[in-house]
Amino acid sequence: MSSSLILYDIASSLPEQTFSPNTAKARYALNVKGIPHRTVFLEYHEIEPTCKKIGAKPTGDSATGYSLPVLYDPATNTAISDSIEIARYLDVTYPSSLPVLIPKGTTALHYAFIDAHAAVLLPLYTYALPATLSIVNPVSQAYFRRTREALFGGKRLEDVVPTGEAHVEMWKEFEAGFGKIDAWYRKNENGGKGEYFMGEDTISYADITVVGYLRWANTVLGKDLWEDIAGWHGGRWGRLRKAFEKYDKVIV
Amino acid sequence: MSSSLILYDIASSLPEQTFSPNTAKARYALNVKGIPHRTVFLEYHEIEPTCKKIGAKPTGDSATGYSLPVLYDPATNTAISDSIEIARYLDVTYPSSLPVLIPKGTTALHYAFIDAHAAVLLPLYTYALPATLSIVNPVSQAYFRRTREALFGGKRLEDVVPTGEAHVEMWKEFEAGFGKIDAWYRKNENGGKGEYFMGEDTISYADITVVGYLRWANTVLGKDLWEDIAGWHGGRWGRLRKAFEKYDKVIV
Repeated sequence: MSSSLILYDIASSLPEQTFSPNTAKARYALNVKGIPHRTVFLEYHEIEPTCKKIGAKPTGDSATGYSLPVLYDPATNTAISDSIEIARYLDVTYPSSLPVLIPKGTTALHYAFIDAHAAVLLPLYTYALPATLSIVNPVSQAYFRRTREALFGGKRLEDVVPTGEAHVEMWKEFEAGFGKIDAWYRKNENGGKGEYFMGEDTISYADITVVGYLRWANTVLGKDLWEDIAGWHGGRWGRLRKAFEKYDKVIV
Repeated sequence: MSSSLILYDIASSLPEQTFSPNTAKARYALNVKGIPHRTVFLEYHEIEPTCKKIGAKPTGDSATGYSLPVLYDPATNTAISDSIEIARYLDVTYPSSLPVLIPKGTTALHYAFIDAHAAVLLPLYTYALPATLSIVNPVSQAYFRRTREALFGGKRLEDVVPTGEAHVEMWKEFEAGFGKIDAWYRKNENGGKGEYFMGEDTISYADITVVGYLRWANTVLGKDLWEDIAGWHGGRWGRLRKAFEKYDKVIV
């Protein structure tokens, strides 16, 4: 086991622990390619010291500057931070593990895609961050609350989720945002009939990005909210989520 | 000449007439591929009746719903609206005219790119639309003023361009927006050394999008403002604009 790649993920009180959309993207990169690895779960306060120990670079994405996922590859003694960097590393280092997630020429396009995709995620964060607070382990709750409440101007996470008419409005905004992603999918090859971003049969990192966040919604939001999302845009999001279930497997 | 493809463009008082970033993208698609064509210039009030006459679909992008560029191909009796649709049409209909501008698999990624790119353009519109008013022909000025002032809440175009500290702030915002595009370019193949979005040597539609707007800035903004832009991010925008000068040719 000591020679396996290690995926560092964030611990929680869920049976399978994993919940983070960002670490999900790295796991999908590994599982879609079929690359053997094992998972090590960390609490938030363990992330910075672990990254420093294995030589993983800060991403600037958290209060400490260090964030997960991080992949450690003992074969090359390399630690990679950030899910798209992990996907690029796997494409280059394990070229016989197909599919290529970021096909030649599309790296810059994938980075632009990630920014365009992130621009519609605010409603998801508004619903999913408070729901995530209730599943992180007690030792991480104060950190999670402090850092996530800062994103909402210090408002208590319990008071962030809109209700009544404000919920109806934000839910519509959420659906409209996913409508933009759907519009891109409908421009894919095969006249938009294909389920994946770059074509009918082959998963690319763009799909992994989308499903990473769908998985988060599916894991932390209630059944009714998730089923609503799953049915938007002709059921595209439910089908995509389902197509990725076989890559959910957490290997410990 | 009657068997040539026809690119419909917007007339102006400039010697070469063309100024629109959108019609520039269609011209670049034709000229990068080396596809023979001729240009017909229209005033704004002629766009809708011409589109209806040749069977070009509305794009929803103007007061009338019809906009340029439109490409008419007498060989297939087809009229195509919208610059990316024109690029896709040329890729499919003239496959031996290389390069392929939207390589297989990247269509949805290009649409997402266009949305991500458009998200940083507000400062450019703020400076370039008032400057464009002074070059459209007298017969089109009232239409141009009415429709463009509506984008700024009815404010007179003469009062839209910020001055003093407000100019300094917006110009910084403009540079920061182009910084995002630069960050994507720096992720391209060849470790970011290549000048083009999908790699070192091959122009794709993403480059055409970027240079379409650079050409507009270069055409309508004053020399000082353009030279400032051209020097941002290690001179990337000046080099890109220069690399495309050989594709500027307006064929009438």
